[in-house]
Amino acid sequence: MTPKSFFSHLECPKCGQTYDPDQPHQLCRCGSPLLARYDLVKAAAALSRHELARREPTLWRYRELLPVRDEANIVTLGEGMTPILPLATLGERLGLRQLFVKDEGILPTGTFKARGAAVGVSRAKELGIDVLAMPTNGNAGGAWALYAARAGIEAYIVMPEGAPDITKVEVAAAGAHLHLVRGLISDAGKIVGRAVARHKWYDASTLKEPYRIEGKKTMGLEIAEQFGWEVPDVILYPTGGGVGIIGIYKALRELQELGWIGEKLPRLVAVQASGCAPIVKAWEEKKKESAFWEQSSTVAFGINVPKALGDFLVLEAVYETGGCTVAVDDEEILHAQRQLAAVEGVYLCPEGAATFAAVKKLSAQKWIHPDDKVLLLNTGAGLKYPDSFRIDAPVLDPDEEIWPS
Amino acid sequence: MTPKSFFSHLECPKCGQTYDPDQPHQLCRCGSPLLARYDLVKAAAALSRHELARREPTLWRYRELLPVRDEANIVTLGEGMTPILPLATLGERLGLRQLFVKDEGILPTGTFKARGAAVGVSRAKELGIDVLAMPTNGNAGGAWALYAARAGIEAYIVMPEGAPDITKVEVAAAGAHLHLVRGLISDAGKIVGRAVARHKWYDASTLKEPYRIEGKKTMGLEIAEQFGWEVPDVILYPTGGGVGIIGIYKALRELQELGWIGEKLPRLVAVQASGCAPIVKAWEEKKKESAFWEQSSTVAFGINVPKALGDFLVLEAVYETGGCTVAVDDEEILHAQRQLAAVEGVYLCPEGAATFAAVKKLSAQKWIHPDDKVLLLNTGAGLKYPDSFRIDAPVLDPDEEIWPS
Repeated sequence: MTPKSFFSHLECPKCGQTYDPDQPHQLCRCGSPLLARYDLVKAAAALSRHELARREPTLWRYRELLPVRDEANIVTLGEGMTPILPLATLGERLGLRQLFVKDEGILPTGTFKARGAAVGVSRAKELGIDVLAMPTNGNAGGAWALYAARAGIEAYIVMPEGAPDITKVEVAAAGAHLHLVRGLISDAGKIVGRAVARHKWYDASTLKEPYRIEGKKTMGLEIAEQFGWEVPDVILYPTGGGVGIIGIYKALRELQELGWIGEKLPRLVAVQASGCAPIVKAWEEKKKESAFWEQSSTVAFGINVPKALGDFLVLEAVYETGGCTVAVDDEEILHAQRQLAAVEGVYLCPEGAATFAAVKKLSAQKWIHPDDKVLLLNTGAGLKYPDSFRIDAPVLDPDEEIWPS
Repeated sequence: MTPKSFFSHLECPKCGQTYDPDQPHQLCRCGSPLLARYDLVKAAAALSRHELARREPTLWRYRELLPVRDEANIVTLGEGMTPILPLATLGERLGLRQLFVKDEGILPTGTFKARGAAVGVSRAKELGIDVLAMPTNGNAGGAWALYAARAGIEAYIVMPEGAPDITKVEVAAAGAHLHLVRGLISDAGKIVGRAVARHKWYDASTLKEPYRIEGKKTMGLEIAEQFGWEVPDVILYPTGGGVGIIGIYKALRELQELGWIGEKLPRLVAVQASGCAPIVKAWEEKKKESAFWEQSSTVAFGINVPKALGDFLVLEAVYETGGCTVAVDDEEILHAQRQLAAVEGVYLCPEGAATFAAVKKLSAQKWIHPDDKVLLLNTGAGLKYPDSFRIDAPVLDPDEEIWPS
């Protein structure tokens, strides 16, 4: 039997307003992002964990919990079921017996943004969208441009001038309309906001369409399945726009409703860079929303987001799971990145490496215990950020020799 | 029951000499590469295709057909089971009803080299190797450096000065000893040859250790499994050192012996760049070996290999399957790369794109038929070659507007 989606409607997590699932929607009238809701009672009856185990290793194995109704609308590059790798040596050094990383660098376009783009673009296609526009710090733009090309949807992508070059190349390769801006992602967002209003384009900005998060949610579904439906004790997530951590939390809640995991939830940790830490500041002040972070700056470009539309959802996920937030310096991030590559052979992006820098702190503070099962989320491949390493290699003539060093 | 390896011995495909499987070996005394042989009768009794379907989505699902004996020696970054994607729109334009690409860009380190490194480094660890050395055009070096780091093996990597920068960064990030050479991979090979003789290092050069090919072989195993044990009619492979095509051919022969596929084999097509086409030349002259290609040059850096040690095995695979060879120009390669990204959303490396350029020719010549099931092998992620696209984007101030174009 072909799996079907149990997507039922869109709902505002702030004011409770519901929306027709089969029409294009952006934000709620109250200004909040909308979330997709499912008929989880029927889904639980239709699908078992046992049945899942036999399905293809992509995020589309969770069809019942995704919003795409017709299989013909699925736009896929084979994304999902990224590996969870033990970090045994570095774990031991910190006195942690169970330290893992989920490596989202092994996805089409080299980052976790592929998940959001796959589901977001598939739904855009299903809703008959012809043109979309979005601001991005780079990786989401690359992913959405390529998936949009595959779907035959035209894409306008606006990113900061300082975004990683490789992500600009991806957008150009996809044949999308690339624009750069002298400013931050928030400035790009304003340009996109005016353009979508003027030209009636579909606004694919973070959380301004409700389906990207459904793609990100599959990280949480995979984590539960890959750990045999026993969730880890702690998950650390590099947090910019926050959709990843919101998605994981949403996944875990849905799995609880399905009865596939128990009451225990992992403590969710939002990791930010010291140069852009609005969520950390809000959490330290026990607030429910963050304030715009002035003059933000960090080497971990993907999490340079001075104010996230979904900040209240990130903070809710942290509070509700007994998690915490941590800020780490650029120097700590780059050191962590080098350690991970040289000791464990995992070449993570700076954002992903930030989570390991955070583990060191939380472990030293005894917030993480030696027996905790700890999972780092690496959001992208290190190779998308070649500038974080300097090459310092001797250049030889063909008749020269190499010696042990 | 834990799966076990049915690796039985090493054998020379030229002179037939056999070697003890549990000692380190490099080339045969006669100078030929050695191949791993398995007890396929026992393997067929121990493993069924049905059983396979339930295993984890990595190349280690084929444990019985891989040379690593002890699970504890497996060095993995989660490699394998890359997706096979339809290229429906471009296929239609060429009048081909079944055109696919297997995307090896979605592997750790961003290329198919991860397969060879995973199995090669695992075996090196199993054999107690402390130090290895290798020449590379870049991608293999990046992969072996990272897997070696994970295994705790020291690595000396020598690559042409002109190799892609990102691959140099990977080697540096892994903490390996990187050396550049003013010359080609053949020059790097000579430096490594002298060094391994002098310092008694393990020579991890292409085909000079017999296990890298076993990792590459898993591409062939996956292709058969993913197509439901009905192999495609044509497989096109970008050919430099040739280990990929040799590995696929070896896999298909082993699957025939297992009785998992029938007599039909895909016609294997070796695709080279016009600026470095020794295999094409040898095939056109109906020879069994190639001659050194002088002054080789191509934008597809990974297949700039003027003389491959395994050339006779590549040619055997082409002859035995009724395949052919094709040379394509750099201009055709770059055009194919742009088409694939903009039309299908798949951003392939130039080497992978070369196979699509070749399909156009073979389709026009009617060597490929409209009903053939055709599979392109993309060996790496386009994002490892950012220089193949020029970025030409307007730079806006935050108060500027974007307009439909």
